[in-house]
Formats: sequence, C-alpha cells, structure tokens
Amino acid sequence: MKKIILLGATGSIGTQSIDVVLGHPNMYEIVAMAAGYNIEELKKIIRIYPTCKYYSVRKESDALALQAMYPNLHFGHGDDGLLGLLDVKADMVINALVGFAGLKPSLLTIEKGMVLALANKESLVTGGPLVKAALKKFKGTMLPIDSEHSAIFQCLQGNKTSEVKRLIVSASGGSFRDKTREQLVDVSVKDALSHPNWSMGKRITIDSATMMNKGFEVIEAHYLFDIDFANIDTIINKESIVHSLVEYVDRSVIAQLGTADMRIPIQYALSYPDRLPLMQSEPLDLIKVGMLHFDAMDFERFPLLALAYEAGKRGGNSGAILNAADEVAVELFLNEKITFLQIEECIAKAYETMEFIANPSYEDLRVTDEKTRAFVYEYGGK
Amino acid sequence: MKKIILLGATGSIGTQSIDVVLGHPNMYEIVAMAAGYNIEELKKIIRIYPTCKYYSVRKESDALALQAMYPNLHFGHGDDGLLGLLDVKADMVINALVGFAGLKPSLLTIEKGMVLALANKESLVTGGPLVKAALKKFKGTMLPIDSEHSAIFQCLQGNKTSEVKRLIVSASGGSFRDKTREQLVDVSVKDALSHPNWSMGKRITIDSATMMNKGFEVIEAHYLFDIDFANIDTIINKESIVHSLVEYVDRSVIAQLGTADMRIPIQYALSYPDRLPLMQSEPLDLIKVGMLHFDAMDFERFPLLALAYEAGKRGGNSGAILNAADEVAVELFLNEKITFLQIEECIAKAYETMEFIANPSYEDLRVTDEKTRAFVYEYGGK
Repeated sequence: MKKIILLGATGSIGTQSIDVVLGHPNMYEIVAMAAGYNIEELKKIIRIYPTCKYYSVRKESDALALQAMYPNLHFGHGDDGLLGLLDVKADMVINALVGFAGLKPSLLTIEKGMVLALANKESLVTGGPLVKAALKKFKGTMLPIDSEHSAIFQCLQGNKTSEVKRLIVSASGGSFRDKTREQLVDVSVKDALSHPNWSMGKRITIDSATMMNKGFEVIEAHYLFDIDFANIDTIINKESIVHSLVEYVDRSVIAQLGTADMRIPIQYALSYPDRLPLMQSEPLDLIKVGMLHFDAMDFERFPLLALAYEAGKRGGNSGAILNAADEVAVELFLNEKITFLQIEECIAKAYETMEFIANPSYEDLRVTDEKTRAFVYEYGGK
Repeated sequence: MKKIILLGATGSIGTQSIDVVLGHPNMYEIVAMAAGYNIEELKKIIRIYPTCKYYSVRKESDALALQAMYPNLHFGHGDDGLLGLLDVKADMVINALVGFAGLKPSLLTIEKGMVLALANKESLVTGGPLVKAALKKFKGTMLPIDSEHSAIFQCLQGNKTSEVKRLIVSASGGSFRDKTREQLVDVSVKDALSHPNWSMGKRITIDSATMMNKGFEVIEAHYLFDIDFANIDTIINKESIVHSLVEYVDRSVIAQLGTADMRIPIQYALSYPDRLPLMQSEPLDLIKVGMLHFDAMDFERFPLLALAYEAGKRGGNSGAILNAADEVAVELFLNEKITFLQIEECIAKAYETMEFIANPSYEDLRVTDEKTRAFVYEYGGK
C-alpha cells in the first residue's frame, strides 16, 4: 500500500488524483490532504474518501468550522497547517498546489525522504536549483505529473538523457490559438477561459492563452530532465493528443499520445515504473481522430514564451519574478482590472524592473515573490 | 568493436547496413557478407568496404569469377557457402535475406550464440515457433530491423510486455492505397512498383500493395513480442512517419516516428540498447510535415491481411504456405504471367489446398515451401 499526501486536493489535479486512487483502493491510500478556500469541494471529497484523517485549509475559520463538523478528523490551517501535513508518514506527496506556495512543500517533501510527484510547476520555475540541490543532497526522487512532462518522461524510459537531441514540448495553442495579436486587444475573461481541449483551473487556462504556461513548462522540463534550453523546442498540436516528443541523436522520435485525460499522467506517477489499468477511461481512437496537425510556435505572437526562455537561461530569481508577475497579472485580468494583452506588459515590465539575483536562497526567492507581486499590483492597478 | 556478418548485402537493407557501419568505423566491422546474383553491386561494395574477407554468392560461376578477380578474398557459393559464412567469428548477424531462405541462417545464428538482427521477416512468418524454441534453448537474442518492429521495440523500452494493451502496426497503404478493388483489375507491374514513401526491394513493394507484407508483419510482431493476435492491430498512416505504436493498459500510447530512412532501425539494432548519431541523415521536421493522417485498414479491400491473421492464429505450417505462395505469385505477377488480383487468388488457393501440419519440423517447412511453390507455379501458370 503506497501512502500519499495530496496537496491541492480540491483543484483539478487533486480531484483527479483522488479518482485514480479510488480506482486502485488496494494499492494507494491518501493519508493527508491540503485544500485552499473551496470548502464545499473539500466536504464532497470527505464524503467520497472518508478514510483520510489529516487535512489543512487556508483559513482558520474554515478549519474551526470543519473541525466542529468532523470531530474525528484533524484540520490545520495556513502555512503551518500545510507544512505540518508533511509530518504524516507517507511514501509520496502529490504537489498540486498552485503558484510559488508550492516550492516550500516540494523542498520539505524531498528533505523528509518522500517521493515528490510534481504538478506544481512553479516549484521548478521559481526554485529549480534549490529543488535539484535538495534531490541531490537527500537522494530524492521527483516524478512529473504535468501531461507534457509525463509524456517526455515516458518517452525517455529505456533511453539515456545523453542520447537526447531535443525535447519537443507540445502545446494546444490555448484559447486564442487562431486569433491574431490585433484580435487579442479586446478579448473577454470568458473567452480566455474557454480552453479548446483541456478542462483545467482558471490560472492555467489563462496561462495557456498567453503561452506563459508553455514557457513555464520549458523551464520545468529543463530542470526535470537536465536538458539545455537550446535543446528544448515547442510545437503546436492543436488536437492535444501528442502530449510531447523526444528526438534522439539517431533521429528517432518517440512520442506519447493519449486523450486529454490528466488521470493518465497522474496514475503513471503513482504506478511508475509499472502501469496499471486506468478505470473508466476512454481509449485513444486515432482512426476516429483521423488527423493530427503540427504547427510552429510563433515567438512574436507569444512574447511570453520567448521571455520564459530568456528567464530560464538567465536563471537565478528570474523564474520567481516571471511567476509572481504572472500570478498577479492573471488575477488582475480575471478581475477585469487589466486587458488580456496587458498581462504580457505587466510581466515584461516586472522582468526588466525587479532586481536580478544570480544565486538566490529560498528567502531571496520569497522576497522576490513578495516584491514582484507588490510591483505588479501597483503597475497593473494604476 | 562489434563484428557483423551481413546476409543479403546487395539488397536495400544490406547496402544501408553497410552505410550505417561506415558511419561508425571504430564501433562496427563487417567480417562476412552473403549476396545473391547481383555481382555488379557486390563489386561496388567490395570497393567501398574492402576490409571484409569472406563472401558467398548464389552461383558457383560467379564465385569462381570473383575469386579470380580478388585473390585475397574468399568466395563461397550456394547454400553451403551461405551457411559456411556463419562459421566466421562474429557478434551479430544481420539477416536481410529475402524469403524462406532466411530461416535456416536465422536458426544457425542463434545456435552459434550470435545476436540475430532480423530483417528477414520470413524467418518468423514461416518458422516462428522454431526460432522461439532456439532462442529459448540457446538463450539467444533477436532484435528487429523492420521499421514497424523496430518502432514497437523502441516503444516497449522501459515498459513491460504484460502491460501492453495492443500493438498498432502502421502501414503506408502501399502503391494502390487510393484505388478501389475495381480499379485494381488491370494495374501494371510498373504501377505496383511505385511505392509512395519507401524505396525497397521489388517483392516487398508488391507485398505492400497487396498488404501481404503487413500481414507478415503482424505474424512477425506476434513472435517478436509475444503478443496475442487479438491484441495486434493495424492502422494506415499514409505519411509513413508514425512507424508503429504501442497502447498500454493505462491508455497511454507510445509511438515511434521518423523519416522513411531504414538506417534508423538498422542502426538501433546495432547500437541497442544505446543510440548513436546517425550520419548524414535528415531530422524529421513535423512542422514541415504539418499533418499526419490515420485511417482504418479495410480487410475486404485487403483480403490477404485477413488471411494472414487467420494463418497466424492457425499456426503450424500456415505461414510457410502463405509465404511460399506469395513468393511465387509475386514472381508470376512481375513476369506478367498473372494479374495483380490473381496474386491474392493464388495465395488463397494454396492456403486452402496445401496440407496443414500443426507442429512442423524444419524439414516439414522445407517440404511445405517446395510443394506450395510447385502448386502455385502450376496453378498460376495454367
């Protein structure tokens, strides 16, 4: 029985992780869950999965109310509650938190000798070198859950990283794939939230439309697989069926394909290096799909992708700046304080304004995150 | 230095194997080569690759003439010459012979403890159980060279055969992909020899047009990977870029892609489990390709594919019947003795007429081959 701590239980990855665990009740057990503000969803989860004893939520008032409602369970709150969950004895932590908040739990997971199943790409975008150093120091294991990175990870099985020519991270193109930049001037929040293929959280849907998400994934791939940025390419597969590809030095290309079902990469992280039947899932029917399209990524159309490559190569606290600026800019856009194209402007401005730190400590990154957020609230709110 | 015996040196796979070896002169050395009747091509090879000392050709007169011309090299001939080459000390045998003639050398390769790199699919189509028994008895290793099987082999790396849901063998559709059966009535030999994607030998090009080749590949896949016929599917990818796919129990699909360059699978067999740079090769440019098409295989349109599944499931000498009938029928078609559609008729007639043997010895298979050939010459020549 593999014991799992699930961080970000009420989000899209969280609920699908529970689904995967429920499919193999004799193999996996969730022993602790962290949620945020969505208490109604957490109550649903407790009904579906009543055997988990330890929980944490963001607000103290929510924790107190839940504690009164479920006296046999344990509810913590805030950062202490979240990090305290990692004291529960487990084999693996699924980190499906959103944002910079995921970095600290990732580092702690590795320190405590648990396998890190990573859906929180910000851990690597903001703190890649810290996570890598912790993995080395504690001989830790990190497994990807992002669909693209799980695809690459699967395509690398039985091969050597030294024989990789390039990674090709695929992208659906996002909600505004077929729009020109001119047409992006007055797009609405509602339009931006309609992703053609994947049903995901709000932030990642907006990040897909700006291609910031793909930029973060390039940085994530760099740290996950130790491949130079020069050897990480992107490609648009608008069907979101080819989840990513690896080209080897012999020109052989290995690709992972599948339906847009996040339970496949989630389960692979759980079952790795084995595979298990995925319950209630539809097989990919390529004949029904009929055609797969591939298009080049346009760096002028998607300047944030170009900026992510630049930030990735510069390293240091660059990813933390980008991520904090993006978190706030997306929030401002969702609250209709700025337009869609101003997301890019806010992030670019933050990137050129915030102080660069070449070898940041966790505390440096935390301060970078805080200062960048303040800057973008100020800049975007003006 | 890996020492290699190359059987079928002057054919398409043979010359490309030499090309691969020349790309890595410090890693691979060809120590013996077998050719057939194409003496001019063999002379070219000797000029390009003069360090190989041992040769065999089909005809005694050719061997004598070559011996006079190259007094420092050794030339055998006929079956004895061919099988005698396997006494040269080597690590690997590339069996790129065509037809039933390849089975005996495959068995001998395994007996002598050399790795069998198999491009002669007839070894498995006609003698699958004998080859498997030899591999077990002598703890041998067999590696695929066919592009589809190399693709599957690559997609299986790092995974377990027990976790395979199905193999999906891809097909270009052959020269007559876009023709109806009615339009096939009066197609010419020249039309049949124009394969849209691959440049291959004559027989395999015709076998691609009748889909007999794909049927043989299904049987080959069954023996190579120990997968039930019920779990081996076929799909048309008319671009011949997706060389085959493996669907796993978790619905994840791994595919191998590449240009239509046989040197990729040849080199992978040589370098396995490593990969080496492939000299002078073009990378696959998916963006330039733009689209990949997938179509269902039509078993009524291609009855020989259906017959191959049936023969594969029946086992015994069924594959030997199919193969011998096909070898002769294709020859009769190439010599304009029968029409294109009569290839199918000849093979179906042989399959229903020839005696079934459930557990054939090599001698049984040899007799089956001989009798079936005689039958089809008689039936097709009438």
